[in-house]
Amino acid sequence: MSGAAGDGSAPAARWSEAETPIATLAAALAAFNHARDWERFHTPKDLAMALSVEASELLELFLWKRDGELPPRARLEEELGDVLITLVNLARRLGVDLLAAAEAKLALNGERYPVALARGKASKYDQLGEEP
Amino acid sequence: MSGAAGDGSAPAARWSEAETPIATLAAALAAFNHARDWERFHTPKDLAMALSVEASELLELFLWKRDGELPPRARLEEELGDVLITLVNLARRLGVDLLAAAEAKLALNGERYPVALARGKASKYDQLGEEP
Amino acid sequence: MSGAAGDGSAPAARWSEAETPIATLAAALAAFNHARDWERFHTPKDLAMALSVEASELLELFLWKRDGELPPRARLEEELGDVLITLVNLARRLGVDLLAAAEAKLALNGERYPVALARGKASKYDQLGEEP
Amino acid sequence: MSGAAGDGSAPAARWSEAETPIATLAAALAAFNHARDWERFHTPKDLAMALSVEASELLELFLWKRDGELPPRARLEEELGDVLITLVNLARRLGVDLLAAAEAKLALNGERYPVALARGKASKYDQLGEEP
Repeated sequence: MSGAAGDGSAPAARWSEAETPIATLAAALAAFNHARDWERFHTPKDLAMALSVEASELLELFLWKRDGELPPRARLEEELGDVLITLVNLARRLGVDLLAAAEAKLALNGERYPVALARGKASKYDQLGEEP
Repeated sequence: MSGAAGDGSAPAARWSEAETPIATLAAALAAFNHARDWERFHTPKDLAMALSVEASELLELFLWKRDGELPPRARLEEELGDVLITLVNLARRLGVDLLAAAEAKLALNGERYPVALARGKASKYDQLGEEP
Repeated sequence: MSGAAGDGSAPAARWSEAETPIATLAAALAAFNHARDWERFHTPKDLAMALSVEASELLELFLWKRDGELPPRARLEEELGDVLITLVNLARRLGVDLLAAAEAKLALNGERYPVALARGKASKYDQLGEEP
Repeated sequence: MSGAAGDGSAPAARWSEAETPIATLAAALAAFNHARDWERFHTPKDLAMALSVEASELLELFLWKRDGELPPRARLEEELGDVLITLVNLARRLGVDLLAAAEAKLALNGERYPVALARGKASKYDQLGEEP
């Protein structure tokens, strides 16, 4: 399997959200970047820029679209993949565990947006409860 | 455990990139959003906007920083958590498997950036090999 | 002069920051968009998305660049032009006078960042004076 | 008038798109930044990041809004002012004339989107004419 040869190409086995932990993707990315000597470019600041650029390429697919109108699925998958790849590269570079970070943020959001106040509202947490 | 009570708060068990699959986060988010009746706001277009906005909040932490200078770790973790949460919300809304999408994109990147050509270069794939 | 023919192409006369008011660009853009029946797509929300996408395309030019390293000038000019065009389209759609808005914001910034406190500091206004 | 005293605060006279050239704003910004010794932070790369961040703050105002639903006008004006201020700071730093750049881009767009092909279409120029 070429992926195991250390050139950072994706493995033959099919990954899935249900079974593949992010650490598997992170390891494949580390090999990919190392084989290309790309660590030198991957400063946290540039990776944060790259993440914003990738998120914007995904956003562009929805430009001028009416609600309910969807971009081509293959384009969506490609850009979603790019965002996750860049997010994992950045988190790894910073030594942050993404799942633990999301878990902590979700707990914080639970406090900021209590069900009784936030239900059916799109307001930001610091403006919740301001309207009748 | 309050998280299991269906109000969408994070579970007590500690998640990690190495062990927790994204599907676990996705299920917690689905419960969180449902408890707040937020599905109505979560169109794919608005979630793509939200993802770009969250990536930009992360980017802002690096603004005016010199290379090597890092923002406070707690702020980084919070914004990285936000990006992953929004990315998972969007992928779930679109029915896209993020790990499979990243795997496919990584395979494509392997073709676009062959080691022999891309090594030590920051060029985009369509400009690789243009310079001596 | 073809630009006067109503198809929205740019006028032959050379514009400049020193002499051409933004209203001249706004009028040319209105004719350009009207000739193509594009007003139907130009909702404020989509124009705000487009502005973010254009700013991100400009940002991408700086990706992986070291400080002091500049992207090709022609690419910079093209993307800067795109940002201004989209900004003027959005402001016009909202009925906001851009110069008056910038003037008001500059006055506000003068209050938020008094010279004595802000000199040589990159901090945000709500964190000014927090450090010794 | 304090604005003339060189501290970079906005002048008392009311600016407008119809009459005030961008060069007037650029000169006020140069004085503002110089009084605060901020030129040291304003590398082209950081200003491009700042522009993307400001455009994203404007975008955030439209998040979760239905078409036709508008954010508070004062917030829109403030963010639009920020975007123009940052755009002018960046263009000045790069020595690019924004109006000339917009004029050139508008002429290019006139070629890329001929009225006969682009009328009523939201497609990108490289996909125009692909559909029946």
